[in-house]
Amino acid sequence: MSYKQILYNKAPTDAIDPSLSNGTFRLNTLPTPTNVPTDKLLVRVHYLSLDPAMRQWLTAKRSYIAPVELGAVMRGQSIAQVVSVGTDLTSTYKKGDWVVAYSGWQEYAVLGAKEVEKVTVPTGGRPTDAMSVLGMTGLTAYFGMTEVGQPKAGETVVVSGAAGATGMVAGQIAKIKGAKRVVGLAGSKEKCEFLVRELGFDAAVNYKDGDWRKQLKEATPEYIDVFFDNTGGEILDACLARAARDSRFVICGAISQYNTSKPQGPASFMSVISQRITMKGFIVFDYAKKYPAALRELGSWLAQGKLKRKEHIVPGGIEGAPKALVDLYKGVNTGKMMVEVAPVSEALGAKAKL
Amino acid sequence: MSYKQILYNKAPTDAIDPSLSNGTFRLNTLPTPTNVPTDKLLVRVHYLSLDPAMRQWLTAKRSYIAPVELGAVMRGQSIAQVVSVGTDLTSTYKKGDWVVAYSGWQEYAVLGAKEVEKVTVPTGGRPTDAMSVLGMTGLTAYFGMTEVGQPKAGETVVVSGAAGATGMVAGQIAKIKGAKRVVGLAGSKEKCEFLVRELGFDAAVNYKDGDWRKQLKEATPEYIDVFFDNTGGEILDACLARAARDSRFVICGAISQYNTSKPQGPASFMSVISQRITMKGFIVFDYAKKYPAALRELGSWLAQGKLKRKEHIVPGGIEGAPKALVDLYKGVNTGKMMVEVAPVSEALGAKAKL
Repeated sequence: MSYKQILYNKAPTDAIDPSLSNGTFRLNTLPTPTNVPTDKLLVRVHYLSLDPAMRQWLTAKRSYIAPVELGAVMRGQSIAQVVSVGTDLTSTYKKGDWVVAYSGWQEYAVLGAKEVEKVTVPTGGRPTDAMSVLGMTGLTAYFGMTEVGQPKAGETVVVSGAAGATGMVAGQIAKIKGAKRVVGLAGSKEKCEFLVRELGFDAAVNYKDGDWRKQLKEATPEYIDVFFDNTGGEILDACLARAARDSRFVICGAISQYNTSKPQGPASFMSVISQRITMKGFIVFDYAKKYPAALRELGSWLAQGKLKRKEHIVPGGIEGAPKALVDLYKGVNTGKMMVEVAPVSEALGAKAKL
Repeated sequence: MSYKQILYNKAPTDAIDPSLSNGTFRLNTLPTPTNVPTDKLLVRVHYLSLDPAMRQWLTAKRSYIAPVELGAVMRGQSIAQVVSVGTDLTSTYKKGDWVVAYSGWQEYAVLGAKEVEKVTVPTGGRPTDAMSVLGMTGLTAYFGMTEVGQPKAGETVVVSGAAGATGMVAGQIAKIKGAKRVVGLAGSKEKCEFLVRELGFDAAVNYKDGDWRKQLKEATPEYIDVFFDNTGGEILDACLARAARDSRFVICGAISQYNTSKPQGPASFMSVISQRITMKGFIVFDYAKKYPAALRELGSWLAQGKLKRKEHIVPGGIEGAPKALVDLYKGVNTGKMMVEVAPVSEALGAKAKL
């Protein structure tokens, strides 16, 4: 038996080249391990997480995390199932357990106890939630909004990349926390309709419309008190021009700038002074001690129906991951984007849960 | 008798046109008032303050202050002397008092009690200090550094526009507050020498040198914990690239961007996320309640010699103000830039103090 993995092959200058023949990545095949070391687990990957931050991991710049080394398995989280358990770990794990795994892009992985977290599925939840609304993207939205943005009753909150995994949770949390008006920016009419009709946003602006800046102005008659930014670039610029006095700009991501070697700063930067704006960048890892409490709150909102989830699953196996990543930067997804590496029908037991 | 005033004549697109014949400003002559209303003072302006923010006051954009109206006297602070006192104000003011006046650009002004502040000259001080180290620029440096930047012992602080009125005080305060290393950015070799030799900065970088980014890197071996920015543009960009984790960027001014209709945002903006930077804009007026305590502290540092002042006085009368303002943006000054409207030799009594 053998399994496939995707290795980081060649640093991209600007956009990622999804071709597996001498592109940014390449395919490798290895024999599936049969013996597991006593302190390890063998897991089978079912759903691979795709995250905007991945492009940054391919750049050898000073950042919050070391870049992926050339020739190494591409870094990434997954939802995986335990296939066999080393003898030291049998008191904690059993065959069939679902885990969030720091597996990277491969079909199977041998991992230590620190590289996996058992998934406890709350009422109304499902294992893949642990990678989205009850995982990194949900936590990112939670801490960005509650700790950095801190919207108050009566305030206007704007979220960019609002139909993405983090943005959609961020906007919903703003509403839960009492914001008067929550406005989303997204890249299609369908996404905008989803935000307003399904998630209860007060308004949504399609930034691909020619008059989106005018629409944004009309959607924020009392200016912007909190801007939760996932995109950077022109959208950040437009929101700076609409900032209210003493507003908070939560700098979560800058997806519009990741695939270029010549990033653009926001031209309206001087509003920072005149409107006394606080812009703060953050990385979710810094809040690790507060994860358990945050997950309890997110889980209860999910169970109560106050918080809605949305997944965008790309079928077809691990070979599709590079192209899916390129598509993520194109904004094809509404909600959390994942690659289905192995379908649920192939899972060991507990199939109904997925 | 007549006096001169300078009116705002024509909005500049980019740079200010200093010509008084149909330039940004124009000259006007009026008869000197002889009777003062009972609730007013007649003051004679001696020193006019020139401030980088002035360019912003000429732009009809949403800002922290309404723009100057076309045809109105150009806005500005001055050090003036009371010439005559309306009968309602004789218990508070007398002829010969020095005041900080919101006079605008004119040789004489009739002002209400709210438009002047009496200058109390502390030991070792002089009246013009009330417009610089013990006035707006000193207070701006004080609150920006102590309330926004908050340097801690062991930290590296970088100040741009460091030889300007605000920057030189900001850097000295950082040192007083225990910063390990204070680095200034300025626009000439002489300014850099002044910062290190006269003010005790640990290093200074001339941003007009071809290799200034390399020099900045070498001057900040432990990265930048606090950046006090007066310039924006490329200098802000370079400091973002040198930011330490959890650094604070005090956005005080952006003099490099004021005279262009196409401002540039900082290309290295994404460091805000990876280094968890907090960027905060501020306006000194927001701290008005704390002015008295701040002035006591600044005054005591000045008296003790911990804080040094520097003035750049442009002689030749009020007609020189437009060109002096253009020169301010060119960076000709070291320290507080003022226009001498009337020399000290013409002051009423108390001449030795100036």
